Amino acid sequence: MKQAKKKNAYRKYAPPLTVAVVGAGAVGKEMIRILEERNFPMKELRVLARSSRPMDIGGKKYEVKETTPEAFDGVDIALFAGTEGEKGAASTFGKEAVKRGAIVIDNGSDFRMDPDVPLVIPEINEHDLAWNKGIIANPNCTIAVMLMAVAPIHRKYGVKKVIVSTYQAVSGAGGKAIDSLTSQTREFLDTGKVTDTGGFPAPIAFNVLANNWKIEDDGYSNEELKMIAEAKKILGDKSVQIVPTTVRVPVYNAHAESVYVEMKKAASPADIRELLKKSPGVRVVDEKNTLNGRDCPMPIDASGKDDVLVGRIRRDLHNPKAVLFWSCGDNLRKGAALNAVQIAECFIARK
Amino acid sequence: MKQAKKKNAYRKYAPPLTVAVVGAGAVGKEMIRILEERNFPMKELRVLARSSRPMDIGGKKYEVKETTPEAFDGVDIALFAGTEGEKGAASTFGKEAVKRGAIVIDNGSDFRMDPDVPLVIPEINEHDLAWNKGIIANPNCTIAVMLMAVAPIHRKYGVKKVIVSTYQAVSGAGGKAIDSLTSQTREFLDTGKVTDTGGFPAPIAFNVLANNWKIEDDGYSNEELKMIAEAKKILGDKSVQIVPTTVRVPVYNAHAESVYVEMKKAASPADIRELLKKSPGVRVVDEKNTLNGRDCPMPIDASGKDDVLVGRIRRDLHNPKAVLFWSCGDNLRKGAALNAVQIAECFIARK
Repeated sequence: MKQAKKKNAYRKYAPPLTVAVVGAGAVGKEMIRILEERNFPMKELRVLARSSRPMDIGGKKYEVKETTPEAFDGVDIALFAGTEGEKGAASTFGKEAVKRGAIVIDNGSDFRMDPDVPLVIPEINEHDLAWNKGIIANPNCTIAVMLMAVAPIHRKYGVKKVIVSTYQAVSGAGGKAIDSLTSQTREFLDTGKVTDTGGFPAPIAFNVLANNWKIEDDGYSNEELKMIAEAKKILGDKSVQIVPTTVRVPVYNAHAESVYVEMKKAASPADIRELLKKSPGVRVVDEKNTLNGRDCPMPIDASGKDDVLVGRIRRDLHNPKAVLFWSCGDNLRKGAALNAVQIAECFIARK
Repeated sequence: MKQAKKKNAYRKYAPPLTVAVVGAGAVGKEMIRILEERNFPMKELRVLARSSRPMDIGGKKYEVKETTPEAFDGVDIALFAGTEGEKGAASTFGKEAVKRGAIVIDNGSDFRMDPDVPLVIPEINEHDLAWNKGIIANPNCTIAVMLMAVAPIHRKYGVKKVIVSTYQAVSGAGGKAIDSLTSQTREFLDTGKVTDTGGFPAPIAFNVLANNWKIEDDGYSNEELKMIAEAKKILGDKSVQIVPTTVRVPVYNAHAESVYVEMKKAASPADIRELLKKSPGVRVVDEKNTLNGRDCPMPIDASGKDDVLVGRIRRDLHNPKAVLFWSCGDNLRKGAALNAVQIAECFIARK
């Protein structure tokens, strides 16, 4: 935690910048939307993907070009949309882009646990950008939503253990998964069955899947193992125990999480509420702080929002050092595209 | 636990019996279906509800009669479908039925915590029937699904604490909630919005609700408080700590639960798997024991089944005395109607 107080010392670029977005799927499009809506100071935006084609985002036209090493010539910052599980474009082109002088911010999973690559959520560990060697990794969407609330608690009270069960939206599995939820749902309503489960291991319409990810060591899924490893790296503390159960639910967008936190020091729900109200990127939603007239975070309210919503803050009635809460965050925004753009913003030199 | 070894001594009825089912909603209908499918030895089945009307279940006709005190004359066993939250028919007619010589088995929440009323899951605490005074309560659906796996673990290893997050189907909220999920889903697919949320506090279509129950003491919902109180009563052990988060999900039927169990003695996942494989009413589903070709419990496979499915059994990597698992059970069956009929079966005298 000492690093947080050290002045950050990393290369800053004088705006306006040349930015590349690599990937034109759900996350890539969201990156472009967020760059535009935050008025990121760009002199040029290059959209790169597997093949050239025109693309439309909210009525605005973009010319997608093929990703090649040369496409990164003159690029200041390259945002890679990435993929979970399989190797993304960053594994092929990331180092080529760095060689040409770009800072690479990769939302994929290829570099997250690379000891030469900082894994960053700016509100939590911007200081880790100081030791970047050109590539910075963006965390898994599930861990980003969880840590936005857990990190402030860890800083103030010391987190010993987190037991978390997720309710993950299909958008985290990509654009095809979104379409599959729609087609499965329509088919079930019309015929009472689902014949094509898309990329899911079983129907996701009107069902929940605790087996949506490959089971690896000790019976944990690769999504759960990512949460464990990434949380420790972002918090800069290997002693924090993360015990996750990841579950896919038939929700289009925004992940929800049921979180139990055991702390080193005692804290009341009121203490945690006050702490989280002051924490950047977090919005407390409860009876006194409603959102869209509702007293509890939920995916349909978190979707499209930058803030991670936190509510149902209460104590373990048997342990004064443990609290529970319920959080929801937009997995395409804070869990992916927004966080990547926020990292990029850390590289803009300010006068 | 000593009681379990004592011979049960409670009134048994010589079959065939006169049975009344009170309630003609989702649970009442399921009770009738289960009585028929288990060949419950009946000489007469009376279906009682607020008003007389004909009713059809799977092509079979039933004549529903109005519930009155006299309707229980000659009834051996009365199954009340009950309601959660508000007072059910058992609070008005339960004692009248007992006065007329019937055993009342109430699925509602009116009598569950009454010290004169046993709260029973036959596989767990049939011995508590010995002290019945005519009324027996059936547990909340969520706790029944959870305890089917937790109780055997408690008996063998001693359970200290359970941290549980639920994924509850809408059928637990009744027939209107089922229809509302359908109409909300159709409306959202057709128009992109939900205008009528039915009895839900917000849309349940493509959303999850951690605020589906009234918040009461210490920020816990009444569903969560029921889980805490009922688990202790059924296990006959007030020392067991239950820390629940209840969440409604857009699933028609069968509840799922993510369960973390801290024990007094160490047990490996293999120990727990072997124990649960031998436990009546539990079916382990994993890579080696698939169900419908699937390696993990899920609501669509648990729906319509008597067994509670348990999978994803694994250890807390930091605590040899803690295990996690994922369970799914039919909330209308083991969580309600099946359990009530199983209690009734305990009252049949066998030669």
